[in-house]
Amino acid sequence: VIQILPVEGLPEIVEGDELAALIAAAVEVRDRDVVCVAQKVVSKAEGRVVSLDAIEPSDEARSLAGPDGDPRRLEIVLRESVRVLRSRPPLVIAETRHGFVCASAGVDASNAPAPDTVVLLPEDPDASAARLRAELGELTGRSVGVIVTDTFGRSWRRGITNVAIGAAGTEVLRDLRGVYDPAGYELHSTVIAVADEIAAAAELVMGKTARIPAAVVRGLDVAGSGTASELIMPPEHDLFR
Amino acid sequence: VIQILPVEGLPEIVEGDELAALIAAAVEVRDRDVVCVAQKVVSKAEGRVVSLDAIEPSDEARSLAGPDGDPRRLEIVLRESVRVLRSRPPLVIAETRHGFVCASAGVDASNAPAPDTVVLLPEDPDASAARLRAELGELTGRSVGVIVTDTFGRSWRRGITNVAIGAAGTEVLRDLRGVYDPAGYELHSTVIAVADEIAAAAELVMGKTARIPAAVVRGLDVAGSGTASELIMPPEHDLFR
Repeated sequence: VIQILPVEGLPEIVEGDELAALIAAAVEVRDRDVVCVAQKVVSKAEGRVVSLDAIEPSDEARSLAGPDGDPRRLEIVLRESVRVLRSRPPLVIAETRHGFVCASAGVDASNAPAPDTVVLLPEDPDASAARLRAELGELTGRSVGVIVTDTFGRSWRRGITNVAIGAAGTEVLRDLRGVYDPAGYELHSTVIAVADEIAAAAELVMGKTARIPAAVVRGLDVAGSGTASELIMPPEHDLFR
Repeated sequence: VIQILPVEGLPEIVEGDELAALIAAAVEVRDRDVVCVAQKVVSKAEGRVVSLDAIEPSDEARSLAGPDGDPRRLEIVLRESVRVLRSRPPLVIAETRHGFVCASAGVDASNAPAPDTVVLLPEDPDASAARLRAELGELTGRSVGVIVTDTFGRSWRRGITNVAIGAAGTEVLRDLRGVYDPAGYELHSTVIAVADEIAAAAELVMGKTARIPAAVVRGLDVAGSGTASELIMPPEHDLFR
């Protein structure tokens, strides 16, 4: 049996907050727990917040914003992007510097600390996860996995789901190639994105509006050393780039 | 706290099996549980198995199969498809008659009942879910949600994750548009694919090779009347079609 526990009672997170200490105080973690933390609070703690006030939008940002968008926000989106894949102003699907493909290159105004600010993705979400894992280990004496999560859209399907953008101390991809099913058929192309499934499970208790930015997934057997960067499809294998 | 319970001890499923009765005998369901069932066993119970023996592949199937694929299997894939989106023989990404975009139009040889047979998606997975839900209700007196799941790949990300291809008695999309976050910012484009997240959570105990084709997700507050067909992005809104 797997349990998903919300981490309740966290304060509003601001730059410099010791996120690991706040989580350790809010929930009693156990060995092999996977602690899922929403990108938004990781980014805020790391100071990845930008004020739109001083931003001078480029022509491209103005064009991508269209009549309804804020060109300053789109300027930030462009600065966080290596490539725009699709746009329908003011919606932009872009590839981030990390290699993730998502709306607005992960730049988000919701749950931002103040009006006219936006929150960016962490500089290096795998490093953020590794740091949280190390700090949780020091504070609690427990060996946990950590997944930094964000909600991404998908092509062809409506709605967003929570996925892993950073990971440490956990299995990320479970490679079943070369494994045989009970009927003896080799599972040729079955690599399961376990970290994304854990992130999705965690979202069921997190909620965009409930101010529960973290969850513990307990009872998994996924200790490992994967990183979320492994979830990025190498362009040469990508049929959709 | 949410719990994910594997449904253990199910026999190998064959055509005509009473899947709901087998599940009800294997696990004690409660009101508001969401019972997730892998497409593979739903399809087998419904007799959605095709022998490749008598299949005469078309030229297109031979071409899509390439030197390594089985042109008869690709012929079935084409019959299940309304459109091929991408191919790199013998890999085909196709839109199924239901509107799902997935590898091989959901046609799968793994866990098939016999060599040279393949399993197709259910004819109408939402109807399959509704039938299972009604039968579970009659057998147990409990009101549960049912999700029929399958593992799909995603563009830009490695690995497959479990998603909902059929649903009954459960929320599928949670529309937060017009809802305000704790800072007062309206969540403009936040529709959460709850049913896909439940399916992903269930997969954490199901496993491709562990012969656990069903799981119960307990503790959610998602009673509703969504269908998985709502998860299909309407082509006119799809930036990636």
